Amino acid sequence: MQHSTSSALVVSGWHRMSYSFNDNTLISQHLESLIRKLHAFVGTAVTQDRYIVFGAGSTQVLSAAAYALSLANSSSSHSPTRVVASVPYYVLYKQQVEYFNSEKFKYEGDAHTWRNRSESDASTNVIEFVTSPNNPDGLLNKAVLHGPNAKTIYDRAYYWPHFTPIPAPADEDLMVFTLSKLTGHAGSRFGWAVVKDETVFNKMVLHMQVNSIGVSKDTQLRAFKLLKAILEEGTQIFDFAYQTMKSKWERLATTLSLSNRFSLQKINPQYCFFYNKVRESSPAYAWVKCEKEEDKGCYAVLKAATIIGRKGNVFGSEDNYVRLSLVRSQDDLDILIQRLQKLVLEEDGAISM
Amino acid sequence: MQHSTSSALVVSGWHRMSYSFNDNTLISQHLESLIRKLHAFVGTAVTQDRYIVFGAGSTQVLSAAAYALSLANSSSSHSPTRVVASVPYYVLYKQQVEYFNSEKFKYEGDAHTWRNRSESDASTNVIEFVTSPNNPDGLLNKAVLHGPNAKTIYDRAYYWPHFTPIPAPADEDLMVFTLSKLTGHAGSRFGWAVVKDETVFNKMVLHMQVNSIGVSKDTQLRAFKLLKAILEEGTQIFDFAYQTMKSKWERLATTLSLSNRFSLQKINPQYCFFYNKVRESSPAYAWVKCEKEEDKGCYAVLKAATIIGRKGNVFGSEDNYVRLSLVRSQDDLDILIQRLQKLVLEEDGAISM
Repeated sequence: MQHSTSSALVVSGWHRMSYSFNDNTLISQHLESLIRKLHAFVGTAVTQDRYIVFGAGSTQVLSAAAYALSLANSSSSHSPTRVVASVPYYVLYKQQVEYFNSEKFKYEGDAHTWRNRSESDASTNVIEFVTSPNNPDGLLNKAVLHGPNAKTIYDRAYYWPHFTPIPAPADEDLMVFTLSKLTGHAGSRFGWAVVKDETVFNKMVLHMQVNSIGVSKDTQLRAFKLLKAILEEGTQIFDFAYQTMKSKWERLATTLSLSNRFSLQKINPQYCFFYNKVRESSPAYAWVKCEKEEDKGCYAVLKAATIIGRKGNVFGSEDNYVRLSLVRSQDDLDILIQRLQKLVLEEDGAISM
Repeated sequence: MQHSTSSALVVSGWHRMSYSFNDNTLISQHLESLIRKLHAFVGTAVTQDRYIVFGAGSTQVLSAAAYALSLANSSSSHSPTRVVASVPYYVLYKQQVEYFNSEKFKYEGDAHTWRNRSESDASTNVIEFVTSPNNPDGLLNKAVLHGPNAKTIYDRAYYWPHFTPIPAPADEDLMVFTLSKLTGHAGSRFGWAVVKDETVFNKMVLHMQVNSIGVSKDTQLRAFKLLKAILEEGTQIFDFAYQTMKSKWERLATTLSLSNRFSLQKINPQYCFFYNKVRESSPAYAWVKCEKEEDKGCYAVLKAATIIGRKGNVFGSEDNYVRLSLVRSQDDLDILIQRLQKLVLEEDGAISM
């Protein structure tokens, strides 16, 4: 709101009516070049000699990537490509692969269970989704599977200085980003991939064509205005967002530090090139563990205290885990902290009896 | 451009940031109710007691419909659902079904070839795409397949008074519309379906969720402004668009009426309830036939005259057909008419020699 003039958008009724831009692509070159500038400024990704493809949020980009990296056809000579992710994982990968129900790929669960098998089973193509920082636990995950048949899709949605130290510009073969977790404009549905290989890029462009004939031009215009406003302000919006996330995390960590019943994920401090110093993490989510055997239905324990999280098993994990979101309003966080404090106080009370 | 004030859009930087609207849906209720009003005003569709789902252009809505109408799972007990359309058909239906490569459905070509087989083969589910008015030939197609296992997706993209007489409000189980062919704002990627069955509607909503977490809120806002401007002006924009399309069609028909080499599709006049009179059609595309045996590569014949159409076989038809688009600028149409006139004159010249 502090940058209302630079971030506001005015669109004439007849503006940008056609499918494509003047260069006949579905992608605004102005927006693409702004994205490259932003990655260079923040140091989040190498974009030189890389292709960029847009989608309706990272959601659409992720499925485009899965289709693009699957084998051309899974005829009888090939098994469907295995799609895996390390537990705990963002559930959308699984949902999408199962929903599309394509002969090209099958969701096969935890990447770790395939670690030793992948080399012996060299004929099967594997796609590993790597979320880094991870949703739900904020860790800077790396790929578990390697080898000639292992391909990775790095979901870099949270790889911005307000959520994590930035140890180096990411330089994986296929990286996915989203406006939603950069500026908070989830409703605009704008995501993009940075892609090394031209064939993979072309397949992703085809995916966008067949799925939705590209991304709304209104959305591209909005994203352009927002990213331009960010770049004009230098580090300001990141400073603001980092302070906000850090303060939320510290309040939560302080509250739960008094508890024997609940624990939080540990994220080690790391050098951040954007801030030129070692810094703590400030993750988007708390990955809360109920430590006691009798609390293994952790979701129900928190729900009884009117805290609605997301169950561990949604992330392929055990139900003694619950994810709590910190990308909510300050009001929501205040209420969360109050209710957690009450839970922790009750816990102390029980011990002192 | 004549309604620049009512159709312009201003968006604050922080406006509509979140995934959902205040009622926790991904769909603007204001926009939905405006769509119902528009259908009632123009008489294009029955929307009372119907559900409405939004997508990124009709493109995304069409694939959502195909997934929603396919059987829940195509286990060994079920064959994949057959997807068909009458030749000539809009190629996207085929492209999508083949691209997604789902175990749920298979593209099986021309609906007519399944007409007599469908009853005897009662265990197989069939989805028929019916484009009405049809792309490429502008005819008000009806479903070819009937029976308990036959479901239809009516693509009503061109069912507006500028492209066709409106004999009655459409009232099929599942009808798909798009802003692109209503106002021309293809770049905004906004389409919707009007759906009778709640289960089918819910499946389509799920599709949008898994695919892209709904439609860009920027796009929904833009569509709202545009549809509101249309309704405020009464019949004005339709009058303008009808006159424009009619004049294009008449110029083309006049030009080709002198030819023995090229012919155009015949569309019979029909009573239009919107205009309260019998009127000619004013289709979006010319479905040109090269009449002579030696011209059966019709695309090449026109290309030699620097007219780039779309080949008949793209629409499942023979290559003595070519589709020419009339939803282009006046400048493009002027050039097209000039070049066609030249072709027709040469034809006469050859005859007189």
